[in-house]
Amino acid sequence: MAANTPMNAKAAMRALMAPRSVAVVGATERADASSSYVMKNLMRFGYQGQIIPVHPKAGTIFGLPASHSLSALANAPDVAVIGIAADKVIAALEEAGSTGVKAAVVLASGFAELDEPGRERQRQLVEIAERYGMAICGPNCLGLFNLGSGAALYSSSLSTNLENGRFAILSHSGASAIALGNTGRFGLSHVVSSGNSAATDIPDYLEFLATDDQTSAVGIVIEAIREPEKLAAAMEKMHAANKPVIALRAGRSERGARATAAHTGSLAGSNDAYRAFFRRTGIIEVADMDGFMETATLCLDLKNRPTKPGVAIIGVSGGGVAHVSDIADEVGLSLPDLQPETVARLEALLPPFATPQNPLDTTGVVFADSKIYQDVLHALADDASVGLIVATQDAPAGLDDFCASEYLGIAEAVSDYAWTGKVPVVFMSNLSSGHHPDVEAKLSNVPVLRGTKSALTAVRSLITRSRVVSWPDKVAATKKNLLAGALTEREAKQLLAAEGLPVPREQFVTSADAAAEAAKQLGFPVVMKIESPDILHKTEAGGVKLGIGSETEARTAFDAIMASARAYAPNADLRGVSVQEMVTGGVEALVGLVRHEPFGFGLVVGIGGVLVELVKDSAFDLLPIDLARAEAMIGETKLASLLEGYRGAPKTDRSALAELLVGLSEFAAQYGDDIEAIDLNPVAVLPDGKGVRVLDALIIPRKRD
Amino acid sequence: MAANTPMNAKAAMRALMAPRSVAVVGATERADASSSYVMKNLMRFGYQGQIIPVHPKAGTIFGLPASHSLSALANAPDVAVIGIAADKVIAALEEAGSTGVKAAVVLASGFAELDEPGRERQRQLVEIAERYGMAICGPNCLGLFNLGSGAALYSSSLSTNLENGRFAILSHSGASAIALGNTGRFGLSHVVSSGNSAATDIPDYLEFLATDDQTSAVGIVIEAIREPEKLAAAMEKMHAANKPVIALRAGRSERGARATAAHTGSLAGSNDAYRAFFRRTGIIEVADMDGFMETATLCLDLKNRPTKPGVAIIGVSGGGVAHVSDIADEVGLSLPDLQPETVARLEALLPPFATPQNPLDTTGVVFADSKIYQDVLHALADDASVGLIVATQDAPAGLDDFCASEYLGIAEAVSDYAWTGKVPVVFMSNLSSGHHPDVEAKLSNVPVLRGTKSALTAVRSLITRSRVVSWPDKVAATKKNLLAGALTEREAKQLLAAEGLPVPREQFVTSADAAAEAAKQLGFPVVMKIESPDILHKTEAGGVKLGIGSETEARTAFDAIMASARAYAPNADLRGVSVQEMVTGGVEALVGLVRHEPFGFGLVVGIGGVLVELVKDSAFDLLPIDLARAEAMIGETKLASLLEGYRGAPKTDRSALAELLVGLSEFAAQYGDDIEAIDLNPVAVLPDGKGVRVLDALIIPRKRD
Repeated sequence: MAANTPMNAKAAMRALMAPRSVAVVGATERADASSSYVMKNLMRFGYQGQIIPVHPKAGTIFGLPASHSLSALANAPDVAVIGIAADKVIAALEEAGSTGVKAAVVLASGFAELDEPGRERQRQLVEIAERYGMAICGPNCLGLFNLGSGAALYSSSLSTNLENGRFAILSHSGASAIALGNTGRFGLSHVVSSGNSAATDIPDYLEFLATDDQTSAVGIVIEAIREPEKLAAAMEKMHAANKPVIALRAGRSERGARATAAHTGSLAGSNDAYRAFFRRTGIIEVADMDGFMETATLCLDLKNRPTKPGVAIIGVSGGGVAHVSDIADEVGLSLPDLQPETVARLEALLPPFATPQNPLDTTGVVFADSKIYQDVLHALADDASVGLIVATQDAPAGLDDFCASEYLGIAEAVSDYAWTGKVPVVFMSNLSSGHHPDVEAKLSNVPVLRGTKSALTAVRSLITRSRVVSWPDKVAATKKNLLAGALTEREAKQLLAAEGLPVPREQFVTSADAAAEAAKQLGFPVVMKIESPDILHKTEAGGVKLGIGSETEARTAFDAIMASARAYAPNADLRGVSVQEMVTGGVEALVGLVRHEPFGFGLVVGIGGVLVELVKDSAFDLLPIDLARAEAMIGETKLASLLEGYRGAPKTDRSALAELLVGLSEFAAQYGDDIEAIDLNPVAVLPDGKGVRVLDALIIPRKRD
Repeated sequence: MAANTPMNAKAAMRALMAPRSVAVVGATERADASSSYVMKNLMRFGYQGQIIPVHPKAGTIFGLPASHSLSALANAPDVAVIGIAADKVIAALEEAGSTGVKAAVVLASGFAELDEPGRERQRQLVEIAERYGMAICGPNCLGLFNLGSGAALYSSSLSTNLENGRFAILSHSGASAIALGNTGRFGLSHVVSSGNSAATDIPDYLEFLATDDQTSAVGIVIEAIREPEKLAAAMEKMHAANKPVIALRAGRSERGARATAAHTGSLAGSNDAYRAFFRRTGIIEVADMDGFMETATLCLDLKNRPTKPGVAIIGVSGGGVAHVSDIADEVGLSLPDLQPETVARLEALLPPFATPQNPLDTTGVVFADSKIYQDVLHALADDASVGLIVATQDAPAGLDDFCASEYLGIAEAVSDYAWTGKVPVVFMSNLSSGHHPDVEAKLSNVPVLRGTKSALTAVRSLITRSRVVSWPDKVAATKKNLLAGALTEREAKQLLAAEGLPVPREQFVTSADAAAEAAKQLGFPVVMKIESPDILHKTEAGGVKLGIGSETEARTAFDAIMASARAYAPNADLRGVSVQEMVTGGVEALVGLVRHEPFGFGLVVGIGGVLVELVKDSAFDLLPIDLARAEAMIGETKLASLLEGYRGAPKTDRSALAELLVGLSEFAAQYGDDIEAIDLNPVAVLPDGKGVRVLDALIIPRKRD
């Protein structure tokens, strides 16, 4: 019996994705049976490995000799396609595992997506996979298809128009895999419709594809990420292999999440957390299927990645390039101004009524002389700020051949440029319906994209994506435990202070006299706040007094606070009053942590104080963060302009705030296992050089189920 | 010589758009001449009216007898296509006008888009058009094409694939008209590429199309609107004729505007003003060419407009409908929850593992029995909250015919439903590349849309668009004049107060003693502010003191204010000090007016005070506004949540703020001709029932060139 070692895992994935022999358990010629689809697909797509139908009554199935059982076989096949009902699957898998079968495809539904008995079946399936080191596609899936070998372990119709190519699709959803795989835009190496992905999930498939010679880019369609660390590790291998990964996520909206939950039992995380995860692992997230198609096309067909972010746009119509640059602005592309030398070259190339600028309208002169277009492309490419050129030209598919022929010169100019051009060029149709085939045929060496928004978004994504995985960090923190139960504000701040985070000085008192003494020691003015684990909203309880200026005021305030709090919450545990140094001036920030499974903690920073809900200003990232990222996050907020000294106020200590973010990130690395969320609000960001102070802190202990 | 009366205008537009005879001035057989394109297009598209080539040397041109000149003709032709160079155009138009030609197409460039002599030529062109009552397409245009009659007054290649249909395209940009007209998605009645549109612009073409039997919807591609009142009037006729109008605007971004300016000399207005104008005239604005195509298809093919905003989404895949509802959320579609009766009906129709909800995943059972799909559509249509159904189903064009055939049952179910269904249905592909032709062929009675985002945005636009023109209002206001020169804050507030807008009580004083006396009369505390037309930023000048509590303080404050202001601006005209009732409490709003030509004034309301720049909270509309719209605008702001009583503050007098907006709208109707902009900031919105007070006012007089 094989142990589940890395070497075995690799062999198991190879057995699944590139099997040399396939057993079809439950094989039958009955037309509506999933196993008969698999048998027919294997034969139709010319699979050259061994195909072994398995059926208790044996005989021949589709002309192939059948076996009574997997265990009756002399040699274990690489993969067993389990084409029988859910309630018989576990026994079949157990037999496969014990026989030495390395991989399986479980087609049946009736697992975690259905009900509690299904969830139990799925647990058993995972346990078998772990015990035997098996790779298992499914359950509740269409299966997978290796187009190079014809291994079509796939339980639905496969189009004979599918072409072998270099793009792999991994999808939790079968319907999406069919839609994205059958546009005819590019060839495929593998299609995997992995359904519930109970034992083998996206990270495992990516690990295989990172070293698969047939695949140069991968698109994933996911409903949820369950093992982000594994996915991040797989992305490191994909980056090392220079293979981009595109992700389309279904279930982003609350309503969408509901539909997905009904389908796969997956839990959708928050969009912010997913977006941060994709960014930090260098996965290119796309918004919709069109975005998927254009980004995939760009990744496959753009041979040299741009080395500068600047994009030049060129077209033959002023209105046309204006429209394209509108959308470029909307998607966040950077369109640099051209250098004077470039402008001078363009002036020499173009007629006097043209305006040499970016975006560039060449005017219609290029129809008569397309050499001008090619020369203009080279001039743009030589501009130091330009990293990629988008040539925008519609030549609609509905044109007659003569009208389409008028655009061939431009297409040829772009193609000729591309062979030797200094920066990459993309040819773009504003219409998603694309170019006339005669025009597209001229552009075999150029990425041809469709639909202004999807195409420009694809360009921006490719330019800005990270090619380094920066999550999770490899920080080995000493784990520490929180005291049990709810923490008061003072206890929370004490804990933060013990880890080096800046809080105001304060003293806990239980009498009016002690309050007066504490205030005197701290120095006037002071703030006084009720101390009770049962009162979260101290202001509403009348439990906060600001600007206490004398011992007398402190005594009066103590009594007033205790009385108000008692009236507000008669049964609360009122422990006393915290007397605090009153910090004035500066800008109020909010810093918070919130758990976003499966990614761990997300950190939020933004405008704090009473404006939080109103302004809804925040930057988000997953933990851990370093100082550079903390600085960048602050820069993404509106808070940043307050910190700079808004409307004549003094500049504040932004770098101290950044250090606080890093400090909180490190705090979470130690205490995170016991914490659900942390709110530091407000944090006073004092004038430059004076640091920050956490004026209020709320630590919510982890909810344990 | 014809006067330019409405009746003549109509006849002139008919002569342009549906001519019975065409003269081509400058006709030649030279292949690269624009006039030869026109001649060949007229002959190729079977134009049955008279074609008269005009050339000084006459003879025959393309086999047709030519005339020496327009004036040599016995009968004036309906339209003269002027196919000669810019410097000869004016003389030709003068001859055409004096001969009784009602319309012209001026193809040449070299007008306002080029230089000052060109602008002069364009002024002369407009003058001739007005003097003779001529309709003139162009200059600097490709021309126009009436597909029904074959009148192809068009100076570029026209595809023979173009089909006669019911959609008209009006475009400032020639390239955009070609791209949008040649996708093969729908037939066209007219294509107009009107270039500079100097004399005859979009509103004139719409006036014609409103009564054109051949046209049932219109798409316009514009770079700028110059005569919004005319366009609004034309839209009234389009609404009366039940013909939707779609608009794509190029030059939305600053950079885009620059490219357009270089092209046509048009000035782009602000996006907010355009958006408000489109909304108030019921023009459907689209974001890009794909949006144009889907909205056009929907307008043409959806026979019954939805009467309820609720949309139901149905598909055969959980992941698929989750994705569609993600995008539905993003574009602002309303997906109502289904009623219990509907849920019960769906439970009876669908298998137990399906979840009856909106969006609805029917599960794959419908592949085996598409009658279920049809029954489900009827069940959804009977739900009281559902006004339209989106059936989302990919069946990619690249599938082989057998795989595509698996979707025919669903397509037939949708089509069968549509014949009798209670609410309209749309069939949608998530991929912009569309459906397999066999699938689309089943759906002749259903709008078939492509691309999730473009398609759902089209649905939302059609549901939410206004079908009434609410701009401009027909208010006949008494025009009043401002005093010349800059107004001080006090003068501005006096003017507002004279028109009934609420300002604090105040007195103007020129001595410390008078200040003390005024403060006493107003009642303490008071506010004191420097009065000078030369100091706009009073706070920065040390010219504002709040909370003056006694006569002594008032005296001191007077001297301090005068001294600070003198130090701040030694040469300023310091007139004295305004002593004002101090208004405390309430919420600070900003209300402003700003001129957005050509639309007149835009009104802005949002959070005021020091937060303005930070929060950037505002609602915008063009003037005039009524009370209902004022209320709605406030509702669009974050200010609204402050007004409701944010974090325990008292509810404020929102209706008084709405009345202030209407008051300012009426103020602008009287004084607007002399005003460039007005800032009322802050406006104190006091607790409910206490009204509002304009605490500071800035009226900027109009800049006259």
